Amino acid sequence: MIITISREFGSGGRELGKRLADALGIPCYDHQIIDMVAEKEKLNRDYVSSMSEKDIKVFYPTTIGCSFAGMNYALRQSMSIAVAEHDLLRELAEMGDCVIIGRAADVVLAERRPFNIFVCADDASKLRRCRARERSDEQLTDREILRKCRSIDKQRRAYHSAYSPMAWGSAAGYHLCINTSGQDIKTLIPPLVAYLEAWQRSEPIK
Amino acid sequence: MIITISREFGSGGRELGKRLADALGIPCYDHQIIDMVAEKEKLNRDYVSSMSEKDIKVFYPTTIGCSFAGMNYALRQSMSIAVAEHDLLRELAEMGDCVIIGRAADVVLAERRPFNIFVCADDASKLRRCRARERSDEQLTDREILRKCRSIDKQRRAYHSAYSPMAWGSAAGYHLCINTSGQDIKTLIPPLVAYLEAWQRSEPIK
Repeated sequence: MIITISREFGSGGRELGKRLADALGIPCYDHQIIDMVAEKEKLNRDYVSSMSEKDIKVFYPTTIGCSFAGMNYALRQSMSIAVAEHDLLRELAEMGDCVIIGRAADVVLAERRPFNIFVCADDASKLRRCRARERSDEQLTDREILRKCRSIDKQRRAYHSAYSPMAWGSAAGYHLCINTSGQDIKTLIPPLVAYLEAWQRSEPIK
Repeated sequence: MIITISREFGSGGRELGKRLADALGIPCYDHQIIDMVAEKEKLNRDYVSSMSEKDIKVFYPTTIGCSFAGMNYALRQSMSIAVAEHDLLRELAEMGDCVIIGRAADVVLAERRPFNIFVCADDASKLRRCRARERSDEQLTDREILRKCRSIDKQRRAYHSAYSPMAWGSAAGYHLCINTSGQDIKTLIPPLVAYLEAWQRSEPIK
């Protein structure tokens, strides 16, 4: 079973994916994807990270005042990183059951019929989560944190829309959408595992 | 615990709500709401049903060629039925734990902090479900059935949007969104009950 996790920034989607993978005894791929692509493409890790899951359209040379050649290079790089990531997703899925966080894996791996989860949360929960992992030299106001959340989600939505006609975060595009607002994620894992097992056990109705 | 079910037409949301209520040993309100409102307002049951969960805007007198007075009457009726339904929802919620299907109960009862579920499914599953409950004198083609599904969902979306800024069927507006595609709903009930219990057990994080 391949499980994909799409997630709003700050919703705890990564924690949920990691805990779910641990409970199922299967690997969870997230930042490792960036490391692997950086190594394979011989690119700097931070650079790959900065280009990953971004709206490809922003790299198109439409902004007046930007270097046309430079923009074209960024566009080519962004696209080649996306291609390398998607190739890697297919290789990882080929290797066996796993959880994959982000990177439009729900669309890229559609032929393998993954179980697609979307994770979201309200603003209060996102603030709490972002504050908990804030670096000591990073002192953002609540408003700045929420602006960052929205900005990253906007990129993720745009990245997803480049590959799928189904709207990012629209219930119909996923098997299960989980709202983690005010919840301790680890308490939700056992019933989620039970849900996945029931889903797998059930004979598909034709 | 008040549980609200919003659902795409043909997704099995009503069955899921009914089975969930049975498993929890609490009442489930769906068609009963129409019966109760019809009785209270001294209106014909089928008439209340035909006006329920409809886009209120369609009754506004903007269509050229329609009777202004007649449209105004329909608008007034549609609004008074919605008001009566919402008053009733509050009374039912006051009486104790229950499952409520549709009628924007997620928004109307927001102050009681209900657990809001959205149920959706793919076209193949909707077709199968609609065929299974088709009347013998109703012979629709697949295309006609799906058109009917979309038309009813459009009404439900519009009805919901009259009361909430959150888009109908957008993951962020619900605690859990369940896709029933190709699934036998009764197998999903035990893990769903476990999920609800875990949710209730968990202390809300401030």
